[in-house]
Amino acid sequence: MTQLMAAKRGEITQKMQAVAAREGKTPEEIAAGVARGEIVIPANPAHVGLRPCGVGKGLRTKVNANIGTSEGSPDLAAEVVKLEAALAAGTDAVMDLSTGGEIDAIRRALIARCPVPLGTVPVYQAAAEALSRRGAVVGMEVDDLFAVVEKQMTDGVDFITVHAGLTMANLELMRSQGRITEIVSRGGALLVGWMLYHGRENPFYAHFDRLLELAAAHDVTLSLGDSLRPGCLADATDRAQIGELITLGELARRAREAGVQVMIEGPGHMRLDEIALNVALEKKLCESAPFYVLGPLVTDVAPGYDDLTAAIGGAIAAAAGADFLCYVTSAEHLRLPNAEEVRRGVIAARIAAHAGDLVKGIPGAAEWDRRMAVARKSLDWEEQIRLAIDPEGARRIIGQGEPAHGEGCTMCGPYCAMKLVSEFLGTPVASCR
Amino acid sequence: MTQLMAAKRGEITQKMQAVAAREGKTPEEIAAGVARGEIVIPANPAHVGLRPCGVGKGLRTKVNANIGTSEGSPDLAAEVVKLEAALAAGTDAVMDLSTGGEIDAIRRALIARCPVPLGTVPVYQAAAEALSRRGAVVGMEVDDLFAVVEKQMTDGVDFITVHAGLTMANLELMRSQGRITEIVSRGGALLVGWMLYHGRENPFYAHFDRLLELAAAHDVTLSLGDSLRPGCLADATDRAQIGELITLGELARRAREAGVQVMIEGPGHMRLDEIALNVALEKKLCESAPFYVLGPLVTDVAPGYDDLTAAIGGAIAAAAGADFLCYVTSAEHLRLPNAEEVRRGVIAARIAAHAGDLVKGIPGAAEWDRRMAVARKSLDWEEQIRLAIDPEGARRIIGQGEPAHGEGCTMCGPYCAMKLVSEFLGTPVASCR
Repeated sequence: MTQLMAAKRGEITQKMQAVAAREGKTPEEIAAGVARGEIVIPANPAHVGLRPCGVGKGLRTKVNANIGTSEGSPDLAAEVVKLEAALAAGTDAVMDLSTGGEIDAIRRALIARCPVPLGTVPVYQAAAEALSRRGAVVGMEVDDLFAVVEKQMTDGVDFITVHAGLTMANLELMRSQGRITEIVSRGGALLVGWMLYHGRENPFYAHFDRLLELAAAHDVTLSLGDSLRPGCLADATDRAQIGELITLGELARRAREAGVQVMIEGPGHMRLDEIALNVALEKKLCESAPFYVLGPLVTDVAPGYDDLTAAIGGAIAAAAGADFLCYVTSAEHLRLPNAEEVRRGVIAARIAAHAGDLVKGIPGAAEWDRRMAVARKSLDWEEQIRLAIDPEGARRIIGQGEPAHGEGCTMCGPYCAMKLVSEFLGTPVASCR
Repeated sequence: MTQLMAAKRGEITQKMQAVAAREGKTPEEIAAGVARGEIVIPANPAHVGLRPCGVGKGLRTKVNANIGTSEGSPDLAAEVVKLEAALAAGTDAVMDLSTGGEIDAIRRALIARCPVPLGTVPVYQAAAEALSRRGAVVGMEVDDLFAVVEKQMTDGVDFITVHAGLTMANLELMRSQGRITEIVSRGGALLVGWMLYHGRENPFYAHFDRLLELAAAHDVTLSLGDSLRPGCLADATDRAQIGELITLGELARRAREAGVQVMIEGPGHMRLDEIALNVALEKKLCESAPFYVLGPLVTDVAPGYDDLTAAIGGAIAAAAGADFLCYVTSAEHLRLPNAEEVRRGVIAARIAAHAGDLVKGIPGAAEWDRRMAVARKSLDWEEQIRLAIDPEGARRIIGQGEPAHGEGCTMCGPYCAMKLVSEFLGTPVASCR
């Protein structure tokens, strides 16, 4: 029985209780959110050692880190280092997007080391296997695709991205729209190739009930991918993107009716004033399903800094109601990230999520900032470092110049405003604690 | 005659023509904006080699980099390196905040090397001189302060921050409000000390006409500082901050009436949903004077990443109408930045400014992104690097893994969506150019 089926029956599971405890909510609140489809708990019973994590309305905004091998970088060892970097940086979830090397072995090794929900994009592996076994991606058969889905679910994957809304009709919307970057979703592109080659409908759409049966059997959460997400600002919020979102809304309802937990993936690249509109539209069209956004990146011109462009968009999206932010690293658009880029990408996404949580009024969010402010006023450097979102990073920057407790920093020296004002107003530096 | 006086008389100066040419506007549009006080051109005639730059409504959002010595780091050489790093990264303006070493010599050396507008905060030098000559910051006399102002103007400083809105009445607003971080403005804190020690009104407020005379004589733009800007989210948009903003609006009108160009400084730390409100309020209370914001930082908890927290707030502020973003580096709240942190701080602020310009509809902004999108679609890597906001940074990340023209990157390898879709849809990779 899935978490959604249990919630619909009014049952409160151990996983709901665990999520409630972490979020400062009652188990009943979590159960009600799951029952309404506003909260998902991606937690495959086969994932040993998983710490359940909720995603959705009223909960802390979560972040995901993408890792995984490529053809040119097929080794497990490097991905384990990235997994550990992402976990140490505080990621809430990880996606294994491996397309190179021993994909099954890599996934199993990562799941075994991963206490947070782990997601995949099964069509990647299906395409890689079709290429190696049948000589071409389009050689993939429908049963091959579902065999990969089932294999990954059996291994304990907690959520999977399926680009089920990429229908022939939505593809035609894109063609008639006229786009600059057309499709930038890798999974979407693979499926488009297959669809056009065979002249057949997207198998995830055509056989959605088959997918639902598997997801229900393993309690795997579906993350409905947005194949037609904009790959540049000029393509954002067009008829193709919103057409696909409508389809995703239809599929989300079917998933919920089948007792399958579901969330919706979102863009992408867009001007920052379009973000709130996109979040509101997703909530309406998909009946408040959790929204999982990639970025959004608020400009196209900053390769090397897309952790930052995504943090701008992610913060605005979270404040507007997005529930789950997929990190973007500074290597995006250039190459696969290394472990340090993974680490910084997670921190950037966490900052964006927290900036959104302050607006959402998530319990504890404002209190964290308030405590930092008090530590600053009292020039309590150890407490400032302890409260920092990346304590080690903050300590590294202070470095040799670290001031003693109660002293201003090297930035202002004797002109430290905190010290001056406390002296002049007669509020001793340490009094604010 | 100041630019504002000329504009009021209907004259079009060479500096207005230069600004118009850079912004894709007519000289008449620039002159009209200057006459209305919506645009300033901080350009001291004594600043040899200055390339005039406009700040305000309808113009590209500008960014400023703060550099300058401190007591613990008093050498000119390091600041020259930072100046060059900031200029190479594309800063539109620089502020010399030196408080250590030979302040006069440092300022003159920086002005001589600086083709962009250079600003200062005269009270810093006045305080440092009072400390060394009279044994205490509060030993400063009113004539000392104005002597520093005049000296800096004579040297060719283009704009100065004066915390003239920090009146006794606004200070009382802060006291009755009750704040965590009270005053975090260094200049504000110095003046508060002086005011409370002497029991006298802020000299910049009490003698504002004297300041206006000097500013008019040298055509130095006044940047009215917000001493009571919030130093943490909990203190944002309170009665003290808005009370001071009202005073700044009164002073801005007096400046314009005296023919002195004026802009308004803004916060600071605040929740991201308060930013648009703050921009709108500045535009109303200060009758559309250009708004120069520091950040805003959308969370307090990310020391080591405040280039990013400021970029989030700066992008939102710019989109809402802020005209000028003061960068914040990753060293903020920890220590003075080094040259690499200066460089990255400028890039982060430029990204935020550009994200805002896309919303403002600044000419050329969307076209830049469109060209990058076309270069991505056509897998034209050299063009992508050329168009990047930091070409060297992008090239460094690609590094050894740089793909040949027309090939996907190492991120997706053979599963590059651009390649796949172009192949399947029959739109050749290079066709978008």
